[in-house]
This record gives sequence, C-alpha cells and structure tokens, in this order.
Amino acid sequence: MVTEKLALHIKNTSYEQLSQNAIYEAKRSLLNWLGVAIGAAEHESMEKVFHVASLTGSQPQATVFGRKEKVDILFAALLNGMSSHIFDFDDTLLETVLHPSAPVYPAILAFAEKERRSGKEVLEAFVIGCEVEARLALSVYPSHYWRGWHITGSVGGIGAAAAISKMQDLEVENTQYALGIAATEPTGLREMFGTMTKPFHPGKAAMNGLLAGLMGGQGFTSSKQPLEAERGFIKVLSEESKMDIITDNWGEKWEVEKNSYKPFASGIVTHPAIDGIIGIQKQHSLRAEEVESITIFGHPLVKELTGKTEIFTGLEGKFSVFHCVASGFLNLKASVGEFTDEFVNDPTVKGLRGKIHLVIDEQMKEDQAKLVVKLSDGRELTHFVEHAIGSMDQPMSDQLLIDKFIDVTGTIISVDAKHQLIEMVQRFETLDDLTVFFDLCRPLEKGNQV
Amino acid sequence: MVTEKLALHIKNTSYEQLSQNAIYEAKRSLLNWLGVAIGAAEHESMEKVFHVASLTGSQPQATVFGRKEKVDILFAALLNGMSSHIFDFDDTLLETVLHPSAPVYPAILAFAEKERRSGKEVLEAFVIGCEVEARLALSVYPSHYWRGWHITGSVGGIGAAAAISKMQDLEVENTQYALGIAATEPTGLREMFGTMTKPFHPGKAAMNGLLAGLMGGQGFTSSKQPLEAERGFIKVLSEESKMDIITDNWGEKWEVEKNSYKPFASGIVTHPAIDGIIGIQKQHSLRAEEVESITIFGHPLVKELTGKTEIFTGLEGKFSVFHCVASGFLNLKASVGEFTDEFVNDPTVKGLRGKIHLVIDEQMKEDQAKLVVKLSDGRELTHFVEHAIGSMDQPMSDQLLIDKFIDVTGTIISVDAKHQLIEMVQRFETLDDLTVFFDLCRPLEKGNQV
Repeated sequence: MVTEKLALHIKNTSYEQLSQNAIYEAKRSLLNWLGVAIGAAEHESMEKVFHVASLTGSQPQATVFGRKEKVDILFAALLNGMSSHIFDFDDTLLETVLHPSAPVYPAILAFAEKERRSGKEVLEAFVIGCEVEARLALSVYPSHYWRGWHITGSVGGIGAAAAISKMQDLEVENTQYALGIAATEPTGLREMFGTMTKPFHPGKAAMNGLLAGLMGGQGFTSSKQPLEAERGFIKVLSEESKMDIITDNWGEKWEVEKNSYKPFASGIVTHPAIDGIIGIQKQHSLRAEEVESITIFGHPLVKELTGKTEIFTGLEGKFSVFHCVASGFLNLKASVGEFTDEFVNDPTVKGLRGKIHLVIDEQMKEDQAKLVVKLSDGRELTHFVEHAIGSMDQPMSDQLLIDKFIDVTGTIISVDAKHQLIEMVQRFETLDDLTVFFDLCRPLEKGNQV
Repeated sequence: MVTEKLALHIKNTSYEQLSQNAIYEAKRSLLNWLGVAIGAAEHESMEKVFHVASLTGSQPQATVFGRKEKVDILFAALLNGMSSHIFDFDDTLLETVLHPSAPVYPAILAFAEKERRSGKEVLEAFVIGCEVEARLALSVYPSHYWRGWHITGSVGGIGAAAAISKMQDLEVENTQYALGIAATEPTGLREMFGTMTKPFHPGKAAMNGLLAGLMGGQGFTSSKQPLEAERGFIKVLSEESKMDIITDNWGEKWEVEKNSYKPFASGIVTHPAIDGIIGIQKQHSLRAEEVESITIFGHPLVKELTGKTEIFTGLEGKFSVFHCVASGFLNLKASVGEFTDEFVNDPTVKGLRGKIHLVIDEQMKEDQAKLVVKLSDGRELTHFVEHAIGSMDQPMSDQLLIDKFIDVTGTIISVDAKHQLIEMVQRFETLDDLTVFFDLCRPLEKGNQV
C-alpha cells in the first residue's frame, strides 16, 4: 500500500497546501539550479549529446538552458539534467547526499514549456517531486549508496515521474504506473564518478522520469506496488526496509526546506577554510605579496580528501584546499573560474599556494576552520569560522545565491538577462506565461552577450 | 581489464570469423524475433507508446515492424523491443533465461535502417551483441536474477551497446565508454511481471543501448572498467564475481548457437504435453467427440506451474496444461490464437478440457511427457515424448520456425509479404540494401491484407 498511499498524496496535494517556506526554498532551488545549468551549457559533453539528438531528428520543443538550440522534451530533460550537475555545484540534501533539483526540474520545465504551464504549476510539481525522491532516498540510505548506487540518478527518476504525474493531474492508479515505470529503471553506478557519465545520471533520470510520467498518463500499466514489493525498488536496491518514511507525516514539513547550496565549486570539506580566508580578505583586502604564510587549522577530513599540494589541472584544484584558499584570497570566491587549468597554473596563484599550510585539529568540527595569516610586516590575522557558509546552520543568503547565479552563468547570457531572470524567479508563482522566462535563458545572438 | 579486453574482442571480431552455424542461428533468431514483433504490433501497449512518441515530435526514421507509422530510431528500438516480448513467445538462452533478441535486434535494425547498412552487418552485430549480453548474464546468474532483476532488461542494454559499437566500428576506448553508459542504467525489476512494463524492459534496454552506443561514438566518457570495478555492474548487481566468463575463449563457439525458440505460446513446462498430443493427432486426426479421456503423465513442475483447471481468460489459459493440450488436440498448435479469451471460452474447447487429467510422474524429466488418449470405441492411444520440441535436444526445425512465423504474424502483413520476408531472412547476408525488407514489414494499406 506504500505506493498507493504515496500516489494519493501526490494527487491530493495542491499548491495552496504547501508552506510559504517550501515555495520560497523551491524558488531558491530554481535560481541555484538554473545558474549552474546555464553555466555548463557549452561543456564538451553537452556538444556530444546535442550531436546524438540531431541524429535522432530531435524537434525544437523545449529550451536547453544557456543554449540557442531547442530540442525535443526528452532530450531537453537529459541535457538540462546533465548540465546542471557538470560543475558539481548544484544543491544537496545533506542527509542522503541527494542532489534534488538536477533530475526533477529539467523534466518539469521541459513539460511546462511544451504544455505552456504556469510558474505556480512548476513550483508545485517541484516541491512534490523533490518530496518523493528525498523520502525515497531516506528510505534506502545508506546501504543503497554504499552498495554502489549514485542516489541522485537512482531515485531522481522516480521524483521526476511524480512531478510529471502531478502536472498531468493523473488519477492514483496512473500515478502508481508512472512511479513503477520509473522505479524499474534506476540509473547510476558510482563507478562512473570522474567521467561525463556522472552528470549523465541525473540527466537520464530526468529523461526517464518524464517518459514514465507520460506513459503512466496513457495508462501504460506497471506494478501498483513498485516501491514496497518483495521484488520492488526498495528491497532489490537496498538492505533497508524503511517503508514508513515514504508516506508518514506527509505535508507537515517539506524536504525541500532542508535544501542546501554550495557557495564554492569544490568539495564541501574545503568550504570552512575558503569561508575563513574570504572573511579575512573582506576586512583587510590584503595583497599576495604581503603574505608570509597562511595556516589552515581544519578537520581531519580536509587533509584526507583535499590534501593535494602538487596540482596541474582545474579538476585537481578542487581536491587541494591550498588552491581553494588561494582562490578565496585572490578572488574572494572559489567558483567555476577558479578551477580552470589556466587559473591553477597562474604564477601568482602558484606562488600563494606555496605559502599555505594545513594543520589538522581534532577539535574542529566538519563545518569549522581557523585561518591564521602571517604578514611580512609581522602582523598576524586570525579568523575562526564556527559554521561555514552553505552549511545547515549558516545557509546561503538570497544575496549570495544571486551573486552565485551572476557569477556562474559567466558570459553565456547577457547581464541584463541575468537580472531579469533573477527577478522573475523571485516572483515565479506569479508568472502565468513562462515564454519570456524561457527566452531569456537562450543566448539568441552570441555577439550581443557581455 | 575485463571491459577493455571485451571491447578489443568486439572491435576485432569480423563477419568472416563467425562460424557458419552462428550465422545460421542468427538468421533463425531473426525470423523468430521478427514474427513475434510483427504479431504484437497492434497491442494496446504499443498504441500508448506511439502516442507518447508523437508528443515528443518523433520523426519517421525507422520501421516499427508490423506498423504503418515510422518513428525516430530511439522510439523504434523501444517499440520493437516491446512488441517482440509482449506474447512471451520470443527466444531464450535456457541457462540464464535470457531472451537475447528482444533487446539487441531492435537497436541494430533501427540503426541499420537509418544508416542504410547491409544484412551482413546486421548479422555480424547481432552475433557480437548476443555474445556480450549472454556472457554477462552467465557472469551474474543466478544471484542477479534471484535478487529481483529481469535479466533480459538488465544485461540486454549492454549487448545492444556492444552491437551498436560494432556497427560504428568504434575504437576500443569508445566501445568501453558505450558499454559503461549502458551498464550504468540497468532496466527491469521482476516485480513488473504480469504488466505492460515487463515487455517495456527489453524495449528500454534496446533504446538505452542504442543511445549509449551513439554517445560512445561521440567520445562521451564513462568508466573504462564499468563491468568489473568494485562499484561496477557485476559487483553492484550480483553476488557473483565470475569475471573470466566475459572474455575467455572468445570466438571458439558463439552463444547464439545455443538459442532456443518456443513452439508454443505458453510456459515451457507445458511443451512436452502439447508436443505429445500433436504427435497423436498428426497420426490419428481424432475428433473431440470421440475422446473419452486424455491423461497427461508429466514432471511435478507441470502441476505446480500450470495446474489451473478453472480458467476464463486467454492469459489464464497459458497456466493451464489442460487448456494447452486441448489446443494442441483441436488446432495442432498452441499459438497466439489459442490464448485469446474467446478461444478459452469456446464450448468445444471447454468440453474437451474437462476430459483431460494430469498424473505426476516423478520419473519424468522436465522435457518429457506421456499422453494416453482413451476413445469411446475402447481404443487407447499412447505417445511418449522423449525430448519436447524446442528443447536443447530437439530444436525447432527451419520448417517449424517458418510455420510459426506465418501463424504468429496473423493478418498484420499479407501472405505474400510473409513468404518474401522468410525468403529474405534465409539469405539475409546477401542483402546489401535492406529497404525492401523494411518495406515488407509495414502493412501499407490495411485493406490489402489477407
């Protein structure tokens, strides 16, 4: 009865029942998601999938955010799901390491564009789709993840199917079918991490979930207990049998309210140190040549996961807390531009990196760090970060999310488009017609972009 | 190194190295597969997916066998993979219960039609794709199956990706990528059995495998050890670690040579009894009213799996050995037409069913049965089946496969088209241009069909 009860919840939940905070967080999720999707739109892996889409005669039905070309809704879901995960800079539900937006928003937005749905319908579907995937993630975590599944891909498609069921206002039975069709095709082995196939996982989940939702809408039958059955999703793909989590206390709070956003484009263990150096720089505006040394006091994991000192590529920079802190010092950020091969090999950056040291402090919590900067004039500056920005206790402010959006979208869309999009997302529930929104996400004439 | 070695085998194996018997069996597989695909082309689940394809603006690139409408290559792979598994009447590799054609031929044929490839290239790709999926199935069987995976869907996509890699003559590295992209998205929970989602599994595997092959062709990267790695396909999805099976003794024999075909559209345990009654009828041409009783002596599984006496639907008929034997007696076959609701409820059929009894004989092997028919004139006819037709020891003859093709394709294509297709499949390696072959599979004008 788990899937049936869940389908009933999906059908019976309407926008009006969602909390203000859930809607607010769904919009923050959208802005963050949209930014990282646009930012990676020209990545070489995107070109490869565009080429395959053209081989299949894909028709221009839906926007690929940050791209001129439209593609059919299934490929739009795939491409947008991919792009938004390419930088590893999208949102996270920290309890399960689920990235909730990448598999769900792309399915919703492709469907919404084709069917001319409103902003309110998009947000409603997202809160519900996110709720379904997040609860399912909780039900199979951690054994599912440790067995080797990339949870964002494997449960994300079911969240997308739930969202698309909602958008079609499907009956309970059809919603069960949609969930079943999505549940039978989990995507994502963790072995693929470090390759283009990692971002393919949420993309394919979005594509599968959209297809499953449309098929369920046609009455294509599947099991009515795909999640809970003996040979269903939860039992086949995990050692847990935490079935109650899927449906209990539905509507009391929403999982999207726990969503978190990364302020920096590197692994989360580097964030307290980056936050610390930015704290010092905001106050002192130091120049690199004034610095004699920088010492990071951090949690043991900082060394274990990001202790790399010799680095040559942008990707390696993400695994070097020394490079991360140098970036924060020089640019007051550690975003996409700080993890290019060029920036990593810049002489000033390299010089500063060499002055940075790491001391493990067992007392330090995971979201804490202390930075000590010694200057050539003998001064010593210290900054302690109690909770790093982006952590549960210190969420990214609206302004920081806006700054991130502006930064991460780079030169792909115009400055004017960025500001219009930010404003539209903030009042997304008032948009009856999303045409302008979609148009602003497409760089129509490359020459005009600044 | 398992995947790399496998990719090397795929790249280096050419048509000339395949045995005559492998080519012969690939053609028999094609005829059997094509018949069941055409036969189910108008099933209601097909209509539902056609509708979804049209929502995505699918373009007419490739044939859906038995249908007028063409769709894009990805949906063609999905639809043809589905249709060929709808009747549960496709081929089987008995060691692993893998149905090898349904996930692989649809991907190959969609690609071949669009790219105008030859019959020889199709057969070459099939033998290789079948080899890959069959070896992979052996490597994860039985724990994979018992854990709850529908092996045809879960390994089939990797076979399809191998076939499409071969057809593009991909380099080893790109082939590894294609296999990896397919491996990260296994499709098919056994919970879906009994619903439209069961045939969806090989269909989606074909679609995924085709997409993965095309993406690998573009250099979309994935793990280079997706099968053997700690968090790769084999270890995440099974308890086995039988890695050697994947590549050892490649080319000595071909898995397709072990392919088997179902002579009857019901579960395999009913086949010896049906074979037996047809044996009696071919000799004696009895009428139902002459029969006083028919007694089946069979293996214990016959009762366990197909002991149903009260049946009301065509589907239930497949689980009643009594109905199966009645069908064989009356029609000399037990094909699609014998498992309709109408036939099951026909008074003559019902009457005869009531005269049939089952006796379990522990001495009987699974592919054996003895039939004893008592006639009202006092005569008693007995027939012992040593190896049922379609079993390993008694494979379907070419003529029986032809009869099955003609029967199962029903009125969907013309009698003339059937005979032309049979003739073309028999010399498939000589067809440089497959246009006529594809055209013959499409009922262009419904009124003309007989």
